[in-house]
Amino acid sequence: MKINDAERDALYKVIFSRRDVRKDFISTPIPNDVLERILKAGHHAPSVGFMQPWDFILVTEDQTKNALKKGYESASLESAQKFSDEKRGEYQSLKLEGILEAPLGVCVTCDRERNGPVVIGRTIKPEMDLYSTVCAIQNMWLAARAENIGLGWVSIIHDDVLRETLGIPDNIEIIAYLCLGYVSNFNDKPELEEFGWLPRGDINQLIHKEKWTNKA
Amino acid sequence: MKINDAERDALYKVIFSRRDVRKDFISTPIPNDVLERILKAGHHAPSVGFMQPWDFILVTEDQTKNALKKGYESASLESAQKFSDEKRGEYQSLKLEGILEAPLGVCVTCDRERNGPVVIGRTIKPEMDLYSTVCAIQNMWLAARAENIGLGWVSIIHDDVLRETLGIPDNIEIIAYLCLGYVSNFNDKPELEEFGWLPRGDINQLIHKEKWTNKA
Repeated sequence: MKINDAERDALYKVIFSRRDVRKDFISTPIPNDVLERILKAGHHAPSVGFMQPWDFILVTEDQTKNALKKGYESASLESAQKFSDEKRGEYQSLKLEGILEAPLGVCVTCDRERNGPVVIGRTIKPEMDLYSTVCAIQNMWLAARAENIGLGWVSIIHDDVLRETLGIPDNIEIIAYLCLGYVSNFNDKPELEEFGWLPRGDINQLIHKEKWTNKA
Repeated sequence: MKINDAERDALYKVIFSRRDVRKDFISTPIPNDVLERILKAGHHAPSVGFMQPWDFILVTEDQTKNALKKGYESASLESAQKFSDEKRGEYQSLKLEGILEAPLGVCVTCDRERNGPVVIGRTIKPEMDLYSTVCAIQNMWLAARAENIGLGWVSIIHDDVLRETLGIPDNIEIIAYLCLGYVSNFNDKPELEEFGWLPRGDINQLIHKEKWTNKA
């Protein structure tokens, strides 16, 4: 099946306008058919040995969100202590999650035992199943953007809090907690770039030819 | 910036027609401007704390490819021993990489020390930088598909072989070795699905509501 130039350009438009969304969520619920398309995009990610190790836990209730927000707050306080005095104030001024405001949360997990102990392509690099699950998340991120829905990955929360709050069994690996919702605005640039925390790197400094030591 | 329905549908077309390509590579070289777009798509992936921890090592020389192919062959032999007698023959009949045939190889790495020791969003979940790099790979995978270029992730090779062959420093994490090239054909379905190794799972079995135990 051939992809034409307009379709290719649409993909790039989605990739370059995708943002990690932490604010500007509005309360409009996500229609079921839209959510189904986003989850299906995740389910059609590449997976090592076609093991499809992912599960999706949908969170919509305030009680659940409140418990997760508390978990974020405690993890964020713990994190602030790790920054230098100079950076700590800046860090604490940033809004880094939208757990309560986003109408939908999705916890994405990886069942490392799915489809048996020996998986094609995971025999040498055991982390491949975790990476497959991340590919599913990136598909969902782009699908959400293409539906004009914001998505943010909340990584400042301990797995234990998610495990206990959502009742996730011990043998299931937690990869991500995602916040999804329509937004009043998509930023032109990543917030940390706009804020001056770090600049976008020069891609030419990241490309090597044949050997690490030969910068392109 | 609004994404319209045609653009959204183009994204889904790319997502659903993306394949892990191991055969059907043709030797036509990838033009520089096309390669630049694919790498730029990777560079515009989300990254924890905007750390952009990735590097891309481009492999085009036969000598390098031959060394990696040898590494694959030895890792594949080692892997075959892990399958049951019944599955081993099937495993060995599969073509699982296109190292020599694909005109371009790209090794994607993660510099876990980039931009200093404390990274926003990695304070609690240290693997977030590895996951950011996987997001870059998935962006590249979709960009390649949108350029009608096949991409395959070779995971049956020891990191040590890549490290030695490409001269990658010890403090740099190796995430993936990718094979890229134009193809004579994109399969309608994943090869392992077509071959009957595993079926595509029912997505409804993977969706939970509010708690792991509540299947949707």
